[in-house]
Order: sequence, then C-alpha cells, then structure tokens
Amino acid sequence: MKVAVFGLGNQTYYRQVLKVPERLGGKPPFGGSRMALEFAVAGHEVWLSDPHMESFDSSIREELTEAGVNLTADDAEAAKDADVAVLFTPFRSGITVKIVETIIPFLGRNAVIATTCTMPVLVLETSVKNVLFMEDREDIGFSTLHPAAIPGTPQHTHYFIATNELLEEEIVKQEQIDKLKKLAEDTGKKACLIPAELISPIGDMGVVATAAAVVSALEYYAVSKSILKTTKEMTEFQLAQAFQVVSSIIAKYGMEGLARFLSVDALKMSLKSMLYDEKIQKVSFAAMDVLENFGDIEAIVGDLNGKDSSFESTFLSAPSPMLISYMEELAGEDVARGIVREALKKLYQGNGR
Amino acid sequence: MKVAVFGLGNQTYYRQVLKVPERLGGKPPFGGSRMALEFAVAGHEVWLSDPHMESFDSSIREELTEAGVNLTADDAEAAKDADVAVLFTPFRSGITVKIVETIIPFLGRNAVIATTCTMPVLVLETSVKNVLFMEDREDIGFSTLHPAAIPGTPQHTHYFIATNELLEEEIVKQEQIDKLKKLAEDTGKKACLIPAELISPIGDMGVVATAAAVVSALEYYAVSKSILKTTKEMTEFQLAQAFQVVSSIIAKYGMEGLARFLSVDALKMSLKSMLYDEKIQKVSFAAMDVLENFGDIEAIVGDLNGKDSSFESTFLSAPSPMLISYMEELAGEDVARGIVREALKKLYQGNGR
Repeated sequence: MKVAVFGLGNQTYYRQVLKVPERLGGKPPFGGSRMALEFAVAGHEVWLSDPHMESFDSSIREELTEAGVNLTADDAEAAKDADVAVLFTPFRSGITVKIVETIIPFLGRNAVIATTCTMPVLVLETSVKNVLFMEDREDIGFSTLHPAAIPGTPQHTHYFIATNELLEEEIVKQEQIDKLKKLAEDTGKKACLIPAELISPIGDMGVVATAAAVVSALEYYAVSKSILKTTKEMTEFQLAQAFQVVSSIIAKYGMEGLARFLSVDALKMSLKSMLYDEKIQKVSFAAMDVLENFGDIEAIVGDLNGKDSSFESTFLSAPSPMLISYMEELAGEDVARGIVREALKKLYQGNGR
Repeated sequence: MKVAVFGLGNQTYYRQVLKVPERLGGKPPFGGSRMALEFAVAGHEVWLSDPHMESFDSSIREELTEAGVNLTADDAEAAKDADVAVLFTPFRSGITVKIVETIIPFLGRNAVIATTCTMPVLVLETSVKNVLFMEDREDIGFSTLHPAAIPGTPQHTHYFIATNELLEEEIVKQEQIDKLKKLAEDTGKKACLIPAELISPIGDMGVVATAAAVVSALEYYAVSKSILKTTKEMTEFQLAQAFQVVSSIIAKYGMEGLARFLSVDALKMSLKSMLYDEKIQKVSFAAMDVLENFGDIEAIVGDLNGKDSSFESTFLSAPSPMLISYMEELAGEDVARGIVREALKKLYQGNGR
C-alpha cells in the first residue's frame, strides 16, 4: 500500500511539555512520524509530509529515511496515488481542512482519508463535502486511524478505526476499512472497529470525561438495581438528563458557566445522601472526595470563578436525539442533516455561544 | 402560610428497601410526612393528603396530628386556599399530573406549586400549561422545594428552590420564591436558589452522574492547564462532546446501548494514556480502577450485555443548544419552544426511542 502521513507530530511538545519519556515511557519520534516509521518497517511505501521537515531533528530524519520513509514538505507529492492518507495535523481545524482540500485531487482511486486525535472525522467529512463533489472524488472514504495513545509509547497497542455504524449516511466503504485494518495489524497493533461518532469521545484526550460518565452511569445503574430498587427507565432518564445538562452548559457557557451554575456546595450537599456502597460507587466516592477537598484543585481551576458575565437563556436539558427527530418531521431529513452538521461545526469551532 | 403536602412518602421503601435508619440515620416518618411535620412545628397551617392515609402507621399519624398537621385523603380539601402546594407524589408522572390538575382550581391566589425529587418541575409545568390557561389560573407559579436528601435524615439540611434563571419563559414570581424560602428557613434549613433546569440534575438521585461529570470536567480542565497545555476551547469541545454522546446513547438506546457501544476495553486502552497525576485526577483514576476490575460490578450490570437488538442510526454528538438555536431560526421561537417541551416530555416518559 502507498501510505501518506501528514504531520510529524510536535516533538518539542511531547518531549518538553508533556515529558512523554519520563511520564509514559517510549522514545522519539512520537506522533505522526512514529506512525510513518512503523508503517514503513511493516513494508509499506510511506511518504511523510510536513512544512517544517527541514528543521526536524536530523538524527530522527535519518532513522526515518533508513527505514524507507520518503520525506517531503510537499503535501501533493506525498498524496500522489496514495491508498491511505493519515492526518496527524495540528489541532486547529482550518489547517487540516486546507491540507485535505489540497490533497483530494491527488489521492489514488478509492483512497481513504484517516484522521487521528487532532480532528473528529465527522467534522472533517462535513467540511470538505463540497470539495469532494466539485472535484468528482466521491470515491474517497473517511475514517480514522486513531492511536488513542501517543504513538511511540508503550501504551500505544491499538488503533481505533471509524465505521458507519449508527450513521445516517455512510462515510467509508468496507474495502477502505479493510485497508486501515491491515495497516494497523501489519504494525502489530490491535485494530478496534468503532462507530464513527464514538471515535473522538473514546479516543481523544476527553476520554477522561467519557470514562467518568460511562463508569458513573454503570455504577448508578448498579446502585439502582441492588439498593434503590428504582426502575431502569428512571435511571436512564436521570442519567441522560445529567449528562445533557452538563454538556449543554459547557457548550453554551463554557467552563465558567459550569463553575457558576453547578456549584460545588450544592453538589456536595446532594451527593452526600447518595453514597451507599464504597465498593460499587468508586467514582462517586472519588467525586465526593474532590468536592470535599476542593481546595486541592481550586488553585488550578480557580480562574473560572468571578467572571460574572451574563448568561443568555436556553434549554439546557432538551435531549438532542429527540430534537433531531422533531426537526426531521418538521423540515425533512435533508434539512435536519444540514442543521446537525452546522451545529457540530459550530461546537467544534467554539463559536456556538 | 397554608401549606398543603401531597404524598406521605413510602415508609416501607425507606425503612425496608433503602434501610434508611441503618444506612443514613434519622427516624420515621421520612419523606413528605416529615416535611409536613417540620412545617407544622415551624408554626404553619399544614395539610397532608394521601389516598392511603387510613393505612398509615397510627403512631406516626398521632405524632403528626399532635404537631398540628391536618390529615386527609382528599386532595381538593388539602389544596383549598393553600399558599404552597408541595408534591411528594409517586415517580410515575401521570399520577402527579392528575393530582395537580385536580388541585389547581382550589389553590389560593398566587399559590406556588413545588415539586420535590419525584418530578422535574419543568416537565410538570409543561404538562399542565393548558389546564392553567383553561382554568384561568396563570397566577399560579411553579418551583421546587426539593430536599436533595431524604427528609428525616441528618443529611437533610437544605432545600433547593427553582428560579427562572436561564429559562426563556418565567415559571415563578419573586413573591412565590420568597414564600418557599421562608418555609425552608422556618424549618431551620438552608434555602439554595438554583436555576430550574439544574434542580433535577443536582437534586435528584442522578446527582451521582452529575457530580462525576462536573468533577471530571474540572479535573480535565486542570490537567489541560497544568500538564497538557492545550487550549481551553479544545478542552470545552471535548467535554461537551463526551457528555453529549453519552447522554444521547442513553436517551436513544438505553443502558444496553451504553454497554454495547462504549466498550470497557476501548475505554481502558485509551484512558491508560491520560492518567498523569493521581492528586488532580481522582475521578479518572477511580474510573480506571473500575474498568480494570470490571468483574466487581459486572455481576450487577451484566444483564445489559448480550441483548443485541438493532440500533437505529442517529446523530449522537449533535449539541442541543446549537440545534435549538437553528430551530429558532428555521421555525421561529414559539415552534422551537413547543418542540423542546415535547422532546423533554418524551425523554421523561422514556418513549423517545
């Protein structure tokens, strides 16, 4: 396979800011360049493109070249006839979209564009839909080769590959998923097939929040069943509502809104009556510990308080899936889809407020 | 003030199922009857109504009567000229709505109807809007006198009172809030004024999920600032997305969908790279502990697996606040409000799937 990787990965960030070797282990290169290296070692034809190629550590460049990786600063050259394009590009979405717009005409027939941790695949797919149509390149598929870890560390044992499951419109074909699966497995990693909408919440750094939400939901379900003896429907309503409200507050009012409206004191008073069993409520007890010793993290998150800006009203607990189904009834499926796409882009660009 | 309390509280549930005295302390009566008792002791004229009044423990009935509580099985009698109506009615929404429809014509001018932990005030207000209009009783306000604990236990030191903050349409007047505040404080409790949309996620049993979400969000923000050095916007996007997706999955597919799509293995693989500091990531480490020792709660939540029903597609990560603002543009504010109300009712009744 011809594989094009875009973006070396910011080695200064990994080594000096994150201190990856000390904290997680492993050795440079980290990120996109490590992925390219592993694909080449596995026997693929690999191109690695980055505008800062010239200033990249020369010993690492040598290691890459020796392994057979072709280095370039020209995205079009890397993309030419590629079967797989992997985007390890910067977090700011504008840059990734531009790169993708540049490479689309050059990619091989039925190529697949795979995002990693830096951009949600559905936001990208939405952003370049018009270009695909204009360039008559709707043969190109979209998925992920998401490391869900830092490539180059021992924690990186797997790739998350996005599937069409749960999507209303397909974004990738089976043969394209198979290419990604083979690429992952050729490097000795586990290929995990995951619905596209879940790649980012499970694979990105925000997994800390996803995991806390999922585990607390399972814990609450366990308590409801074994101690509270309440109905499953009530448990589900309360869980869906809790996460919807927290999500809406952050989406609409940012972290300042969260600090302002979900007060530590109120949460503490209320949570106190819901701690029944330390063994099955580990996350709840840990949350109580944080709320009771809030001073420990207040020094870090304290900047959120005091900025008493006014907050526009909205409906915080209205559930998205139910809203979307009404929108479909009201305006038709196509309009609803367009609105959902725009809503997602607005959220991603942080200007939905 | 004349105060009418509807619902004794299920003493068998509190004593034999929840084992409140053993687990949380305190003594009977628990729930609505305890609230009525405390209001009467504070010097108010109190009526307590319940269809099962006759079968209620006679020694407790005596205690209530001695404190001056008027006992009845006739909701209309209790409601007559009341300033405050407190609903400690069963969880099934149909019953509460029926009681409220019955009492509306009898309540005093400018009375306030206060829900507790058994029904979200916004769902109730939405459900009886037409009746208020038909009966020409739009003077009646809606708020909460939410104990956010079990009345009768030492944890019950406070009442959560719902305000109009963040709502697009007011549901309660200042004088009505003042009545509730006085009532709470007359019993020696702290009156916490909280935006109506947040009463249920903070005060109900689902606070276990709300607290886990809020604390994990603050933890992630702390890690982003102090270790990852990523932007606040990116942190906010990832948090809003994570909670939105988990909420949507539960709202649309139930707990079975959660167990099916947010796999313990994938979460574990990914979370492993995000554990940096045990001191500021207590909830994340607790979540990892649960994921790694999943057998501990699997016996309780294991019934969620294996039911491999097919799951209809949807847009899991579409954010509600952005969807609502598009709906307002598309169909006008009134239509959008109506849709939001219906979506909320569907979610509450568990038939939105």
